Amino acid sequence: MFLFFPQPHLRPLLNSLKLSSYTHTLLQYTHHCRHHSTKMAAAAVPAAAQEAQNREAFRQAVVNTLERRLFYIPSFKIYRGVAGLFDYGPPGCAVKANVLAFWRQHFVLEENMLEVDCPSVTPEIVLKASGHVDKFTDLMVKDEKTGTCYRADHLLKDFCKEKLEKDATLTAEKGAEYKHILAVLDDLSPEELGAKIKEYGITAPDTKNPLSAPYPFNLMFQTSIGPSGLSPGYMRPETAQGIFVNFKDLYYYNGSKLPFAAAQIGQAFRNEISPRQGLLRVREFTLAEIEHFVDPEDKSHPKFAEVASLEFLMFPREDQVSGRSERKLVIGEAVAQGIVNNETLGYFIGRVYLFLTHLGIDKERLRFRQHLANEMAHYAADCWDAEIESSYGWIECVGIADRSAYDLRAHMDKSGVALVAHEKFAEPKEVEKLVITPIKKELGLAFKGKQKMVVEALEAMGEKEAMEMKAALESKGEVDFRVCTLEKDVTIKMNMLTISKEKKKEHQRVFIPSVIEPSFGIGRIIYCLYEHSFYTRPSRDGDEQLNVFRFPPLVAPIKCTVFPLVQNQEYEEIAKRIAKSLIAAGISYKIDITGTSIGKRYARTDELGVPLAITVDSTTSVTIRERDSKKQIRVSIEEVSSVVKEVTEGLSTWNDVLWKYPTHSS
Amino acid sequence: MFLFFPQPHLRPLLNSLKLSSYTHTLLQYTHHCRHHSTKMAAAAVPAAAQEAQNREAFRQAVVNTLERRLFYIPSFKIYRGVAGLFDYGPPGCAVKANVLAFWRQHFVLEENMLEVDCPSVTPEIVLKASGHVDKFTDLMVKDEKTGTCYRADHLLKDFCKEKLEKDATLTAEKGAEYKHILAVLDDLSPEELGAKIKEYGITAPDTKNPLSAPYPFNLMFQTSIGPSGLSPGYMRPETAQGIFVNFKDLYYYNGSKLPFAAAQIGQAFRNEISPRQGLLRVREFTLAEIEHFVDPEDKSHPKFAEVASLEFLMFPREDQVSGRSERKLVIGEAVAQGIVNNETLGYFIGRVYLFLTHLGIDKERLRFRQHLANEMAHYAADCWDAEIESSYGWIECVGIADRSAYDLRAHMDKSGVALVAHEKFAEPKEVEKLVITPIKKELGLAFKGKQKMVVEALEAMGEKEAMEMKAALESKGEVDFRVCTLEKDVTIKMNMLTISKEKKKEHQRVFIPSVIEPSFGIGRIIYCLYEHSFYTRPSRDGDEQLNVFRFPPLVAPIKCTVFPLVQNQEYEEIAKRIAKSLIAAGISYKIDITGTSIGKRYARTDELGVPLAITVDSTTSVTIRERDSKKQIRVSIEEVSSVVKEVTEGLSTWNDVLWKYPTHSS
Repeated sequence: MFLFFPQPHLRPLLNSLKLSSYTHTLLQYTHHCRHHSTKMAAAAVPAAAQEAQNREAFRQAVVNTLERRLFYIPSFKIYRGVAGLFDYGPPGCAVKANVLAFWRQHFVLEENMLEVDCPSVTPEIVLKASGHVDKFTDLMVKDEKTGTCYRADHLLKDFCKEKLEKDATLTAEKGAEYKHILAVLDDLSPEELGAKIKEYGITAPDTKNPLSAPYPFNLMFQTSIGPSGLSPGYMRPETAQGIFVNFKDLYYYNGSKLPFAAAQIGQAFRNEISPRQGLLRVREFTLAEIEHFVDPEDKSHPKFAEVASLEFLMFPREDQVSGRSERKLVIGEAVAQGIVNNETLGYFIGRVYLFLTHLGIDKERLRFRQHLANEMAHYAADCWDAEIESSYGWIECVGIADRSAYDLRAHMDKSGVALVAHEKFAEPKEVEKLVITPIKKELGLAFKGKQKMVVEALEAMGEKEAMEMKAALESKGEVDFRVCTLEKDVTIKMNMLTISKEKKKEHQRVFIPSVIEPSFGIGRIIYCLYEHSFYTRPSRDGDEQLNVFRFPPLVAPIKCTVFPLVQNQEYEEIAKRIAKSLIAAGISYKIDITGTSIGKRYARTDELGVPLAITVDSTTSVTIRERDSKKQIRVSIEEVSSVVKEVTEGLSTWNDVLWKYPTHSS
Repeated sequence: MFLFFPQPHLRPLLNSLKLSSYTHTLLQYTHHCRHHSTKMAAAAVPAAAQEAQNREAFRQAVVNTLERRLFYIPSFKIYRGVAGLFDYGPPGCAVKANVLAFWRQHFVLEENMLEVDCPSVTPEIVLKASGHVDKFTDLMVKDEKTGTCYRADHLLKDFCKEKLEKDATLTAEKGAEYKHILAVLDDLSPEELGAKIKEYGITAPDTKNPLSAPYPFNLMFQTSIGPSGLSPGYMRPETAQGIFVNFKDLYYYNGSKLPFAAAQIGQAFRNEISPRQGLLRVREFTLAEIEHFVDPEDKSHPKFAEVASLEFLMFPREDQVSGRSERKLVIGEAVAQGIVNNETLGYFIGRVYLFLTHLGIDKERLRFRQHLANEMAHYAADCWDAEIESSYGWIECVGIADRSAYDLRAHMDKSGVALVAHEKFAEPKEVEKLVITPIKKELGLAFKGKQKMVVEALEAMGEKEAMEMKAALESKGEVDFRVCTLEKDVTIKMNMLTISKEKKKEHQRVFIPSVIEPSFGIGRIIYCLYEHSFYTRPSRDGDEQLNVFRFPPLVAPIKCTVFPLVQNQEYEEIAKRIAKSLIAAGISYKIDITGTSIGKRYARTDELGVPLAITVDSTTSVTIRERDSKKQIRVSIEEVSSVVKEVTEGLSTWNDVLWKYPTHSS
């Protein structure tokens, strides 16, 4: 649930911008863009700076195309916009709908998950229980004169990076210090951050005014529910809580059986202090979250075998700590070797890998990185992020965490409602239970005001410790006992407690399920997909570079275009007939009856990532052109929509139909 | 955009609960529920009260089923919930997803609309321009001692209804007065409402304490964007504004051509004072809105012929005013007779009719009601609501309004960005233009501080009036002229202005498009659909009433179930094989391998509205049972998923397959 969580205690952000690993992104880009790369390669700058420059140029090319073709639009643009808010324009909106539809197919349908849809407006008590009211904060500093706000860690990070990159007079010692700060940035306390800002004389970037000390700012959008002003509420920072609070009903709906998963797609909100990184850090975004509830004593998965042989880039904790790089691992082996904590977690890692690569994420720029011990919440059993490499570096796009029973227990404690599962035994089991009974009168006489702490410590003894005490008391009559909360040993005597083992018949086991949570940042995945799908190629006469998105048909915003070759009524009629049959087949299309040259019309839709173009050049048959190969086949008018349907719904590949129909050369 | 708008000036709520028209809903229900109806008919109560009681009983039966089977869940239930917030549980969420998918198919794909997806968090300036900051209010009164808030109109309405229904001593005169108040409730000013509350001695319902005077409460959830506290924002009360502010880009994306439509599906938020009516009046809900932009001089629609012959219940303004009921009209004739303002509006009314009836809304309980003159905003050309009859009365579920250029003009004025369309002339047109040039010096001398208002009045003259003034000035040298803003006549002399006609060549016409807006309250449609789909029938042994939702396959939350007839491994293996082929075909299913009797398993899924049930009773073929007819066919295991796909995707009807396969009797 705590995807992209800002506070180390809950879910720290990884400072994951690794300069060195960008090169192949660029290679892939420049492979299609010689013109550009030649120019860039000519500049005489150091390798790291050169790469940063290439990366920036690549990103600009992608972002310009995205914005010009309305994949996205800065929200409320005519009012000069709001930082961190973006609209999806028509092609972007279609891509998003396709990604979500595939998510539903791949996860919800495939696993028979229970999908729910809860409101964004959330009363305070829910987010108090989850920890967000107290801990969902970033550290902020204010320009002391203008009041402008900044993220304290961003300022310190920018300062260190700038020094490392541009300060030629830097000593080795200072360099090491700055690097160390970048490494531990997320772990710094407000006091440590403030001290460093002071020490380095960091001022407000825009005005050079002095800065306030860092203080926590809660990232939730606050509001008030109802007219009284007495019921504070927040816009949810994640969708997961809606599932947790419904656990009891969902468990019952599932026939009171574990394991089962619930899922939710919806908006989440984070009032970022100063949003940066374009589409990657925004104030409102779509999350798709799964909460898979399992018996903590059995985290095997019946379908694990289906993914066990998948091999992909993983980056286990040990490799990170010892400075190695990510490496290819077979997920079945990673689970067998205990690198991944359990089968269910491994199963979802495999399923996430399949999901992302099906969308068109490059598998060479996708890795699963394990959280370091200090990144992970104390209750988490294990946690892996699917990170996708983009021009911004490695970006956390999916978090896959085994969160143990933490969330359900938090809501159970706060609400007083039992959020538990039952395992009925086939026949009652006889169990031996340890029973510790403090004799409060004697303990009170002996320890007075400290009695409560002694009692708690006695009751908290494990079986082994208690049985040892019993033996010692029986042989010696008294025993020394450490009470941690008092920070000292006390003397326990025979008359102060009884320790026994009793046999009981139990009909069921009652327990709080563990939850394994894959949580998807849909907007981040889509942005990375844009970068991975983008390339350029020269136009036919070579005088310009044309942009192409190589989206798989599954993702493409529009599945095909319909172009009458020349403007005449006969061809237009046929184009409309084809359009009708496409609508009937449920295929999105774009018709262009302008007199623009066919080459220009192809280029326009290549830039939208449309996989197939139908050109009407006769009254009996048409051509279908594939976007990336630019190859064409000739198909009769009657067959055209079924051929398009076959290819775009993945029943056939382009290569399949290329064999089946005559090719056409223009 | 102003769907369910609370303020008369913008979009008034219709007090549409018509007791008399409920009877056939009940008939339809009792038709399947004799047991129930007999009991109800036996009670000796007056007809109106009897009907109210029946309606209440019917609603309770539906709502109990919905809540028990998790179609919806009061949000944050374990924390005792929040009024006006509901979760969609698994079947409800699936129904919603199906309705939205069909909406996309029926509107966005069919009309090639430009779908966008904008954030809910909206800066104040946008909602200032749209009028929501100033006018999106309800009148509220407070319990003067406890501070509890109530909607003023609700209290007055409840008082009048109670008197009319229960006060046996009511005089004819008083009765007429209360009826009049109910009729004009939405038009009452805060002062009038307050006066009536005082006159009738209405007190706080819970405490009987005195009430404050009514005052406006803004229904938007307010928040603050960014950390400074200086940028107020709101959760959008509708999705339409996101489209209007993007008009310029969308028009360009559409090749600078009109007409075109943009669409958006998303959450909207209204901080209701005291939500009532269960799922119909909630604080957060999904809207699906279309903004169809047209040339105000040409509101014809190329596809109007496709809907023109549709006939359905309409309720034109004149019929309402003269006390008649809704009646069947052919939409083509309604447009031809000028009852509906224009073809485009008529086209969308027809498409909305098709949309709703395809979902399963009963066409006899669906009507299109035209707004009365006093309901409609002054700028609107015409407005029709699709109202669906439910146990709460006639419920506004879709608003279809011709809002003229109002919204684009409002944002153009506020932002200073031209939100206009261009019509390029084939060749330049010579036009005669009226030019009025006030001579400010002379006007200043004559009118001093009032000069501005005189100048504005002169410039606002139409062509006819100006040419008459020109003639009068030329013959008499001066003329009396009415200045409305001064509320008096002034004397205009020859030297105060020039009036002329000049010939100009124009290459294009520049204008603000009109917008025709169909706006869908998805949650309301779904709730009405539940009521229209619900019926009960006796169990086989007649000892209980079983609930059924007769959802069409398009809407059904789960398309089919898979039941091994008895618990054995062979049948379970086959059930799993079938499940796999269903997943591959993209069909949602539920598998039930419990040993529960097959009748009980059918009943359980009938209650979820699952249309088809596959029972595995051999290793070569299975039976498929249809929910409503309970008829069964026998199909081979290889064919079963394709038969289910055919029927649930609407390629065949159940009757088609009933012919094709051998029937099975159990």
